[in-house]
Amino acid sequence: MEATINNRLGLKELASKVVSADVAAALISDGDVVGMSGFTRAGDAKVVPMALVERAKNEKFQIDVYTGASLGPEVDKYLAEAGVIRKRGPFQGDKGIRTLINTGDVLFADMHLSHGAEQFRQGIFGPVKYAIIEAAAITEDGYLIPTTSVGNSPIICDVAENIIIELNISHPESIIGLHDIYVPAEQGEREAIPLTKASDRIGTKGIKIDPSKIKAIVISEEPDAPSLIVPPDEETQTMANHLLDFFRSEIKAGRLTENLMPLQSGVGSVANAVLDGFADSEFKDLEVFSEVLQDAVFNLIDAGKVKFASATSITLSEELGKRVYSDLDKYADKLVLRPQEISNHPEVIRRLGLISINTALECDIYGNVNSTHVSGTKMMNGLGGSGDFARNSRIGIFVTKSYAKGGSISSIVPMVTHVDHTEHDVDVIVTEQGVADLRGLAPKERVPLMIENCVHPDYREQLWAYYNEAVEKNGAVQTPHILSKAFEMYENLATIGTMKK
Amino acid sequence: MEATINNRLGLKELASKVVSADVAAALISDGDVVGMSGFTRAGDAKVVPMALVERAKNEKFQIDVYTGASLGPEVDKYLAEAGVIRKRGPFQGDKGIRTLINTGDVLFADMHLSHGAEQFRQGIFGPVKYAIIEAAAITEDGYLIPTTSVGNSPIICDVAENIIIELNISHPESIIGLHDIYVPAEQGEREAIPLTKASDRIGTKGIKIDPSKIKAIVISEEPDAPSLIVPPDEETQTMANHLLDFFRSEIKAGRLTENLMPLQSGVGSVANAVLDGFADSEFKDLEVFSEVLQDAVFNLIDAGKVKFASATSITLSEELGKRVYSDLDKYADKLVLRPQEISNHPEVIRRLGLISINTALECDIYGNVNSTHVSGTKMMNGLGGSGDFARNSRIGIFVTKSYAKGGSISSIVPMVTHVDHTEHDVDVIVTEQGVADLRGLAPKERVPLMIENCVHPDYREQLWAYYNEAVEKNGAVQTPHILSKAFEMYENLATIGTMKK
Repeated sequence: MEATINNRLGLKELASKVVSADVAAALISDGDVVGMSGFTRAGDAKVVPMALVERAKNEKFQIDVYTGASLGPEVDKYLAEAGVIRKRGPFQGDKGIRTLINTGDVLFADMHLSHGAEQFRQGIFGPVKYAIIEAAAITEDGYLIPTTSVGNSPIICDVAENIIIELNISHPESIIGLHDIYVPAEQGEREAIPLTKASDRIGTKGIKIDPSKIKAIVISEEPDAPSLIVPPDEETQTMANHLLDFFRSEIKAGRLTENLMPLQSGVGSVANAVLDGFADSEFKDLEVFSEVLQDAVFNLIDAGKVKFASATSITLSEELGKRVYSDLDKYADKLVLRPQEISNHPEVIRRLGLISINTALECDIYGNVNSTHVSGTKMMNGLGGSGDFARNSRIGIFVTKSYAKGGSISSIVPMVTHVDHTEHDVDVIVTEQGVADLRGLAPKERVPLMIENCVHPDYREQLWAYYNEAVEKNGAVQTPHILSKAFEMYENLATIGTMKK
Repeated sequence: MEATINNRLGLKELASKVVSADVAAALISDGDVVGMSGFTRAGDAKVVPMALVERAKNEKFQIDVYTGASLGPEVDKYLAEAGVIRKRGPFQGDKGIRTLINTGDVLFADMHLSHGAEQFRQGIFGPVKYAIIEAAAITEDGYLIPTTSVGNSPIICDVAENIIIELNISHPESIIGLHDIYVPAEQGEREAIPLTKASDRIGTKGIKIDPSKIKAIVISEEPDAPSLIVPPDEETQTMANHLLDFFRSEIKAGRLTENLMPLQSGVGSVANAVLDGFADSEFKDLEVFSEVLQDAVFNLIDAGKVKFASATSITLSEELGKRVYSDLDKYADKLVLRPQEISNHPEVIRRLGLISINTALECDIYGNVNSTHVSGTKMMNGLGGSGDFARNSRIGIFVTKSYAKGGSISSIVPMVTHVDHTEHDVDVIVTEQGVADLRGLAPKERVPLMIENCVHPDYREQLWAYYNEAVEKNGAVQTPHILSKAFEMYENLATIGTMKK
């Protein structure tokens, strides 16, 4: 182990900074704004947060935690449940912290994942006192090598006053070279981001750091928490088939070729399952330009369907993680991890012409999408990068099963209770019932497509009744609604346990 | 006049294409998709549309009209009222067509103004049969020189099967050189847009056209319809002062300098009046990077406050228009008009770090903004470029008076009835009451700022009562709401004529 540490700690002057997790955790003060590495449970610091959990047993203190995206249970469950987190941003996905957000015990700033870096740069979250960053190595020439995610770590290291490194020596040395770190300059002094292909490398192998900021290095061998996705089921397979048929019709219309355009697929089981559907398709030489690479992407690389994948994070199931990380060399020329500011940047997304596939919690008959709030009030996981991609991609697709809770909830409603993606940002909606291609359509043109193609048969009549009554009462205005009945389905759900009339 | 025409028609082979407006209008067929020049009543074709109005007196036919943005009365009033427009996009601002949109007689596809060019490129609106484009000249080397707007004309000329030119010889010859035409390549083959300063010129003096597409040239001397803005009043001046104070506090915080960042200001009286507020301020060497330049920008150029202004359109009052166009040389090194795909491009907006100022129709206590729909159903003007700017700018500001209709409407409500800009896209809200700086805040942190700083005193208690009851009933969830009462203020307005309790 000593040899490995020496090997991974190229800047010898830092050897004296190696301390225990407890010592590192003691550096953090009550009220600190802390930036942490990690994106969708990958590449997050683990042992220092757990030392903070221990410390909190004897001491009351609170910090604000801003990261790349969701972290594993060390922060988003244990640290949150220990009462240490006052405020959290920009994304989370653990039941632990979610519960506390919805009891008001933790404040949650939900934001576009491409916006975080600009906010750090401008100091919107307050001065960042400490960065806690997982690294696979610090090279002789002064680069911090991230592990399984890059996230916001480059900008956090840049703006933080002090840095604590979790040097995770369990990663294979071949992880060096996986990353491509490019950080835009200040606005006003900024050049174009010189990325024109998903596979372009435009930056450095790691994050250039100021060694004098490093106040502690803690050795870790903790693995990432495995991803929580569930396997595809019959309905997600049906959705995948609908989506593939949609792509085929786009090819027929001359708008796509069989290589499609670079694909983005959101976090979660449904998006992963839908991507899995490409395995047995005729599509080939696909590229992925996404924020997170889940199991499906690696299966598609192995199957020869995907030739290159770019993201900011790799989040795998336990089994696939073992296979991939034990044989990382195999993927060396097919993978790159970038800062989330680049993977999610509007500039790059629109230039490359992505096809984005994200999961909707619910949508309405006019194509507005709610990605975050159950019944308009309770936070699920947050917005994530869905807005970065949906708004700027060539085709912004949302997928959702047409119903939830065994049919007592329709995922398509008259009016969503919270809007994360407006009608102007949503191109195509896919459920297990079919596809609604909303591009270029006025709201009233969208309604029949949504109801007939996407809504579960059990709810079609009810949604038509709402729409027809709205037209009858208000006339054929731009967007017919009856405000007093727009949320009636939710009220039914709350009172009688089902949205069904 | 003959001499002027010769002078403006550099491609001599086209002389035979000069016809009357009636002859040109007869080329259009029932069912055609027609792309037209024009952006916020500037640079739009006028005489061919009026010939179409005449033709419609004796013949029933309908077309789809897609443009840069809103057009003058020739299209958006007379042609619409003649029943000729089946569908319209992506923006409008005339009472004539608005009424027909809200009776269901005209379909309206409301979209981000930066998205239109991509939609044209992909053929989403169907094959564009005719382009009708106002031009100041066609040069010897084959460039079409736009007039007072560029809008979507470059991409429309590119994708249209046939082109009708309205050669408007009333514009001074000095208008040649005002424009900078840069059109991105197809996605997948696209380079970075090489624009890093508001004043950069990256393209050509005009739109390179295929002369064989030109089927008719109609000579015109019709002026643009003058802008409809009303002068600043006491409340807009108060809003301007609040905004300037906000900028001063940003300078104090080290986030801005006294040159600020390039300013974008939306269409309309309020945004114009707010910009007017800079005239007597200490700010200087300002740059404008906007979609439309209204009176205020020229006043600020004249006052030496603005050193450069970039946009896609110039929309002036009658008086100022006379002054500016009779002396256009004076502004030659201070102005550029670009395609709206560039003026509104997320890539450029985020790179330059704009400060955007747009008008909200209403917003809610959590910072969601409605820009388009009165009571959630009736279309006003449309989204325009507000989303392009708000989402991607360094600071996205929305301005609105805190009340409307003499106080019977509060512009801040518990929940907006239509969302055009989500809580994730809105940084700062300014009313005549004050400023709510929402950056980095969780929804519950936004509420006191919105209510205490922005809401009219007459409505504060009522909004607090809603919020407090929501917290009481649902707990301090991420976004407290009572769905059954979220729209109660609108229901009051409809039944008793006021939102006041």
